[in-house]
Amino acid sequence: MAAQNMEQIVSLCKRRGFIFPGSEIYGGMQGTYDYGPLGVELKNNLKKLWWRHNVYERDDIEGIETAILMNRYVWRYSGHEETFTDPLVDCRTCKLRFREDKTQDVPCGKNAKVHPGDTSECSLTEPRSFNLMFKTQVGPVPDPESYAYLRPETAQGMFVNFKNVLNATNRKLPFGIAQIGKSFRNEITPRNFIFRVRELEQMEMEYFVMPGTDEALHEGWIQDHLNWWVEDVGLSRDNLQLYEHAQEKLSHYSTRTVDILYNFPSLGFDELEGFSNRTDFDLGSHSRDQDNLGLTAKVMPNEHSTEKLTYFDQPSNTHLVPYVVEPAAGVDRGCLAALCEAYHEEALENGETRIVLKLRPALAPIKAAVLPLAKNKPEIVAKAKAIKKMLQAGGDMRAVYDDTAAIGKLYRRQDEAGTPFCVTVDYDTLGQSRDGGTALVDTVTVRDRDTMQQERVAIADLLGYILTRIR
Amino acid sequence: MAAQNMEQIVSLCKRRGFIFPGSEIYGGMQGTYDYGPLGVELKNNLKKLWWRHNVYERDDIEGIETAILMNRYVWRYSGHEETFTDPLVDCRTCKLRFREDKTQDVPCGKNAKVHPGDTSECSLTEPRSFNLMFKTQVGPVPDPESYAYLRPETAQGMFVNFKNVLNATNRKLPFGIAQIGKSFRNEITPRNFIFRVRELEQMEMEYFVMPGTDEALHEGWIQDHLNWWVEDVGLSRDNLQLYEHAQEKLSHYSTRTVDILYNFPSLGFDELEGFSNRTDFDLGSHSRDQDNLGLTAKVMPNEHSTEKLTYFDQPSNTHLVPYVVEPAAGVDRGCLAALCEAYHEEALENGETRIVLKLRPALAPIKAAVLPLAKNKPEIVAKAKAIKKMLQAGGDMRAVYDDTAAIGKLYRRQDEAGTPFCVTVDYDTLGQSRDGGTALVDTVTVRDRDTMQQERVAIADLLGYILTRIR
Repeated sequence: MAAQNMEQIVSLCKRRGFIFPGSEIYGGMQGTYDYGPLGVELKNNLKKLWWRHNVYERDDIEGIETAILMNRYVWRYSGHEETFTDPLVDCRTCKLRFREDKTQDVPCGKNAKVHPGDTSECSLTEPRSFNLMFKTQVGPVPDPESYAYLRPETAQGMFVNFKNVLNATNRKLPFGIAQIGKSFRNEITPRNFIFRVRELEQMEMEYFVMPGTDEALHEGWIQDHLNWWVEDVGLSRDNLQLYEHAQEKLSHYSTRTVDILYNFPSLGFDELEGFSNRTDFDLGSHSRDQDNLGLTAKVMPNEHSTEKLTYFDQPSNTHLVPYVVEPAAGVDRGCLAALCEAYHEEALENGETRIVLKLRPALAPIKAAVLPLAKNKPEIVAKAKAIKKMLQAGGDMRAVYDDTAAIGKLYRRQDEAGTPFCVTVDYDTLGQSRDGGTALVDTVTVRDRDTMQQERVAIADLLGYILTRIR
Repeated sequence: MAAQNMEQIVSLCKRRGFIFPGSEIYGGMQGTYDYGPLGVELKNNLKKLWWRHNVYERDDIEGIETAILMNRYVWRYSGHEETFTDPLVDCRTCKLRFREDKTQDVPCGKNAKVHPGDTSECSLTEPRSFNLMFKTQVGPVPDPESYAYLRPETAQGMFVNFKNVLNATNRKLPFGIAQIGKSFRNEITPRNFIFRVRELEQMEMEYFVMPGTDEALHEGWIQDHLNWWVEDVGLSRDNLQLYEHAQEKLSHYSTRTVDILYNFPSLGFDELEGFSNRTDFDLGSHSRDQDNLGLTAKVMPNEHSTEKLTYFDQPSNTHLVPYVVEPAAGVDRGCLAALCEAYHEEALENGETRIVLKLRPALAPIKAAVLPLAKNKPEIVAKAKAIKKMLQAGGDMRAVYDDTAAIGKLYRRQDEAGTPFCVTVDYDTLGQSRDGGTALVDTVTVRDRDTMQQERVAIADLLGYILTRIR
C-alpha cells in the first residue's frame, strides 16, 4: 500500500530525519524546511541523477552555478519586478492579508465556520499586486538604489551569462546551460509540506536553439524528462500526467508551455516540472541595441545592458538571437514525489506492518547497512566493522554499521530509511557454522529491501555487488 | 612556475569559464561571482571530497542541509544581531563609508594620492557599528516583526537542529553534524576575487563532545583537516600555516581558535579554515531553562526557545550540554587555493609556454578528453565518440570530445582546464598502422597532463584506468 496521505510522509520525514520544519525550536519559520541526515542524501542523490542525465551523459549541455544575489536590473528586464506578483486582498475585519483566490482561508468572524468561497462575514478590499521577490539592502549605505532581490528562479543566471559561456566554450547551437540552486519566493500562503515553500531549490536548463527548430526540441525535452522521472527517479507513469497550458493563458512571449504533474497524496496532480518555449524573449530582454536584433518577442527597452546576447551563425553569416526552451524542475518537489512513490506499508507474515521506502537504489540515502548477528561476539563485530570500512572506502557512499537492536528491528529501521541492502555478518562468515562446516567462510548475507530475500555473497565480491546495483 | 599573482588566476578563470564576475552585463554586482562550466565542476568536486572525508568515511558524523532563511530569534540568541558588525566611518568630504581599518581606501581629495593610513584630506566621523547581515521582509504584511536575515553562517542550522538529529539518529557523544551551503555577508569592501565576497559557500561541522574531551578533539580536527588539504585537495604543506589566535582576542566563550592559512598569490597567508573550541555557548544560548543547565559560557537569557539542547549521558545518568568544536572552511577559498596551487606556466621544448592546471584528478572539472587524430577520417571520429560515450556512461564524470583544432592545440586547451587525461584515437586504434601491423588495434594513447607522457591503453581497460586514477 503506497502513501495514502501527506501526513504519513511528514511524520516519517520528521521521525527518521529526512525533513524537519525550519527553525523549529523558535516556533518555526513558515515556508522553510531543513533536510536532515537522510534527507540531505536523498536530495543530493536526486541532484546528482539530474546532473548526470543532463550534463555528464550529454554532449550539448554546460553546467553553471550563479549567484543568488544579482544586479537589480536583471529583474527589471526579466519582467519580474512588474509581473512576478500575486493579487492580494486585505480583510478589514481581521486585518489579515490573503491571496485573492484563497479567501476561503479568511478566519474572521469569531467561532464562525467559514466555508470555501464564503466570505460573507469578511470585509475584503479590492485586490492589489504583491511582488513575491524578497528584497534586501546591499552595501553599507542606505541608498534607495542599492537593493537586490533574492532570485526567484535560477534561470536568469543562465541568460545573463549566455555570452560568457559561449566565449569560454565555443558552443554551436543547439546547446544548453544547466543549473541547480536555491531560489526564494515570498509566498503568501506556503503550504503542503515542501511542495510550496519560500526557499526552494531548482534544477533548470536553458536550451538555446535555432528559431524554427524550437517546437520539435521543446517536445523532445518533455519526452526526455518524462522518461527520466520514470526510469531514473522511479516514479510510476500512472502517477504522472502532462498538462498543456491553454494558449490564452500563456505569457505573451511563450508559444507553448507543458507541465509534468505528479499525483501527490492529499494534493492530487500538481506541478513537478515545467517546459516552456520562451522564444527570443529572454536573451532579447537582456540585450542592448534591441531594435537591431530582429526580435519576435515584445521586450522592455533595455537601457542598462552592456551586451548583445546574440549568436553568430557561420553558415548563414548572421548574428541572431537564439530561441530558448526551458525545462525547469523543483528539487524539493522531486524529493517529495520520490518519497511518496517509495512509501509502502506492507503486512508481514507475522501480522506486523512494515514501513518501507522503495527508493531507487541510486536515490537511497544509505546504500548499505552492515549488521552483526551477535553484538556480544567480538569477532563478528570486528568483521562487520571491517566490511563497513571497506564499503566506505571503495564506494563513495553512505554505509553504516548498526548493532543497537536485534536483527529484526535493525531491518525495520533500514526499511524505513530506504536502505536497499542489509549485510549481515554471522557465525558462518567466521567459518564457525553450527554444523561445523566452513563452506560459508568469508561470505555474508545480503538482504534485499524490497523482496526481503537473502542471498549469500562473498565478502570479496560485496563492493562490486552493491556498486552495480546502486547505479 | 606556479601562479605569481592573482591576475593570472582571474584571467584564466574568466577566459576558460571557471569563474565570471556576477551580473556582468549590468556592470556587475559587487562581491558576487558566477561559477562557469569548469568552475561548477571544480566546486562540486571539492564539496564532494569534503563530504566523503567528513561524512561518508567516518562513523560519527551526520550530514544536514538547513534553510538560509531562519527565524530571526536564531540570530538574536547566537549573538549575531549584537556583535556581527564592522566599525564604519563616514567621510564628510566624499560622503562615502568605509571600514575603520580600511580608511586608506578613502578616495576623496580630488587627484590626491592618498597613502595607506593617510586620511589627512578626509574628514572622518567616529566609527559606529554596522551589522553585516542582510535583512529581508518575510510574508505579505509589512510588519516590523516579520523580517529575516540571510544566514551569515551555516553553523546555526546545526545548533538549532541538535535535538532533531539526536532524536532521529540516537547518536552518542562525540558526534558531529556537517553542512555545506551558502551564507551571506554584507561586506563593506568585498575584495580579492572570490576571497572576500558577499555571497559565499561554507563547509562547516559542529562536533559535539563531552566537556573535558574538547581540547584533544579540537586539536585532532586541526591535524585531520590540515592533512586533508594536503593529501586530498593537493595544497602544498609549505603554502599552509597554522595561526593561533591570541587568547585575549578570542570571543568570550571560545577557549581556543586556530586558523589554517593558505599562501595566496598577491594576498599572502590568509584564512582558509577556522577551528574554534566554542564550549557550551551555542547549545546553551539556544536553550530554554538555561539557569538549570550548569553552563560554563555566559549566554543571553533566552525567552523564546522551546527546547533544552541537552544530551542524556547514560553512564552518569545526567543531562548535560555538550561542548562543541567547529571546523569551518570556505568553499570558494578552497577553490581559489586549489586553482592557485595548480596553476603552472611551463616552458616547452619548442620554446612555447604552456599554462597547465595541475589539479588533483578528483578535483579536475573534466576527467578525460577524447580527441581524434584526424577529424576528416569518419572511422576515427566514430570510434572517438564511442569511447567518449563509454566513459560518460560508466564513470559518472565529465568526459568530452573535441575535434575543433589540431592535436597540439587540443592538448593545450585541456591543460588549461586541468584535464588529467587526453585520450587520442588514431590509425593504430583502427588496426591501420602505417607499418601494416595490427598489434595496436583497439588501443588508444592516453596522455598524462602533468608529465605529457603517453601510454598505450586497451579500450577495454580505459574506463578502469581512468577511474582508479581519479579517486
